[in-house]
Amino acid sequence: MSANPRGNGTFITFEGIDGSGKSTQVKKLADHLRRKGHDVVLTREPGGSPGAEEIRALVLQGDPDRWSAETEILLFTAARRDHMERTILPALAAGKIVICDRFADSTRMYQGLSRGDLRAVVDQLHDLMIGHEPDLTLLIDMDPAVGLSRALSRQTSDERFEAFGEDLQVAMRQGFLKLAEEFSHRFCVIDGARDVDIVARDIADHVDGRLA
Amino acid sequence: MSANPRGNGTFITFEGIDGSGKSTQVKKLADHLRRKGHDVVLTREPGGSPGAEEIRALVLQGDPDRWSAETEILLFTAARRDHMERTILPALAAGKIVICDRFADSTRMYQGLSRGDLRAVVDQLHDLMIGHEPDLTLLIDMDPAVGLSRALSRQTSDERFEAFGEDLQVAMRQGFLKLAEEFSHRFCVIDGARDVDIVARDIADHVDGRLA
Ligand SMILES: Nc1ncnc2c1ncn2[C@@H]1O[C@H](COP(=O)(O)OP(=O)(O)O)[C@@H](O)[C@H]1O
Ligand SMILES: Nc1ncnc2c1ncn2[C@@H]1O[C@H](COP(=O)(O)OP(=O)(O)O)[C@@H](O)[C@H]1O
Ligand SMILES: [Mg+2]
Ligand SMILES: [Mg+2]
Repeated sequence: MSANPRGNGTFITFEGIDGSGKSTQVKKLADHLRRKGHDVVLTREPGGSPGAEEIRALVLQGDPDRWSAETEILLFTAARRDHMERTILPALAAGKIVICDRFADSTRMYQGLSRGDLRAVVDQLHDLMIGHEPDLTLLIDMDPAVGLSRALSRQTSDERFEAFGEDLQVAMRQGFLKLAEEFSHRFCVIDGARDVDIVARDIADHVDGRLA
Repeated sequence: MSANPRGNGTFITFEGIDGSGKSTQVKKLADHLRRKGHDVVLTREPGGSPGAEEIRALVLQGDPDRWSAETEILLFTAARRDHMERTILPALAAGKIVICDRFADSTRMYQGLSRGDLRAVVDQLHDLMIGHEPDLTLLIDMDPAVGLSRALSRQTSDERFEAFGEDLQVAMRQGFLKLAEEFSHRFCVIDGARDVDIVARDIADHVDGRLA
C-alpha cells in the first residue's frame, strides 16, 4: 500500500479478550479526544467499511465449518485491506486519529490459538497485503472469569466468536500478553478489572502522553 | 495444503481469451474421457464450490470500482482456496481427473495486465495459500477478433470481465502465450481457430498422450 501515504494521523487499536471492555473504552477515548479538539474516526474489525462489512457477513453467517481456517484468514485479510484503503488510510492521510476496535492482533491471536502453524501464514499475509501496524495498541487485560460473566450478560449475536469456554479465554489472555511482549514498542497493557471510568482515565492519560 | 494429499488424480486446466472456446472444449474433453471410462470432475473458476460461488457473487456484483485490485485478488484467492479444499483436492485424492475452466493463470494474466506490479503479489499469494499447479494447462490460442465476435454473439451475464475491447484482447493473447513459455512444462498451446470437433480431437489426443 505504498501508493497510499499514511500521512501524519495516529492509528490506535484496542485488543483484549471478549468482555474486557474494548467497545466501551473505544467510545470513551473518542469522546475524550474530541473534547480536546481532535478529529477522531471510530471504526472496528471485522468490518469498518461497506465492502468489509459484506465480507464479514459472509464469514459469520451459517455453519462454523463452512470455511477452513485458511480461507477465513484470506477473507478477513480481504476485509482488512478494504477497511485500510477506504476508511483507515484516508483518515490518517487527513491527519485524523483513527481508533479501531480490534485489528490484526486479533487475527494473529485467534488463528494462532485455533492452529499454531497458522500464525506464520497470518504474518506473511499481513506483511504482503496490509503492511501497516498501529502506532499504539491498548490491550485491556483482565481475569477471563470477569470478562466471561460480562460477555454472557451482554447478549450479542456474534455467537461464533464468543461461544468459548473459560479455558480458551485463559489461553487468549496469555496469547494477547505474549503479543504485547512481541510488539512491546506499540503495545500498552491496561488493567481492565477496574471501574469503567478509572480505566478510561488511565487510557486517556496514556494516549495524551503519546500524542504530546 | 500439505495435510490434504493430492493423490494420483490428474489436474487439467483450460485457459485462453474470452470466446476462445474453453467452456465448449471442457465439456467435449469430459465426454471423451468419460467414454474411455475415466472418472471426471468438471469445474470452473471463479467458483467451483458453494463457498467459492458465494465469494464470486460478492466480487462480480455491483460497481466495478467497489473493490481495489488487491482486495479482489484476496477474494479470488479465498474462493480458490475453498474450491481447492472442497472440490479439486478431494477428487484428485480419489484418483479422478479434474478439468477446470480457468484457474490461477487467469488471475496472473488479468491482474498482471490491469497493473503490472500485481503479478508478484498474485504469485506470492498463490505460493502461500494455494501451492498446487495443474498437471496440464490447455491454452486455446487464437486471433482475438475471432474470439470477440464469438463472445459478443453469445450474450453472457459476466459483463465485468468481458467488456473489453480488441486491444485488450490482443494484449491478453500475448499475456497467455508468455505464461505458456514461462510454465512450458505444463502448458500446451492449442490452435482454437479451427472447427470445434477438430480442436476437440487435438485436445483429446494431447490428453490421451499425457495419461498414457
Ligand atoms: N470496567 C468495567 N466494569 C464493569 N463492567 C464493564 C466494564 N467495562 C465494560 N463493562 C461491561 O462489560 C460488558 C462488555 O464490555 P464491552 O465493552 O462490550 O467489551 P468488549 O467489547 O471487549 O467485548 C458490557 O456489558 C459493558 O457494559
Ligand atoms: N471452434 C469453434 N468454432 C466456432 N465457434 C466456436 C468454436 N468454439 C466455440 N465456439 C462458439 O464460440 C462461443 C464462445 O465459446 P465458449 O466455449 O463459450 O468460449 P469461452 O468459454 O472460452 O469464452 C460460443 O458461442 C461457442 O459455441
Ligand atoms: Mg466489543
Ligand atoms: Mg467460458
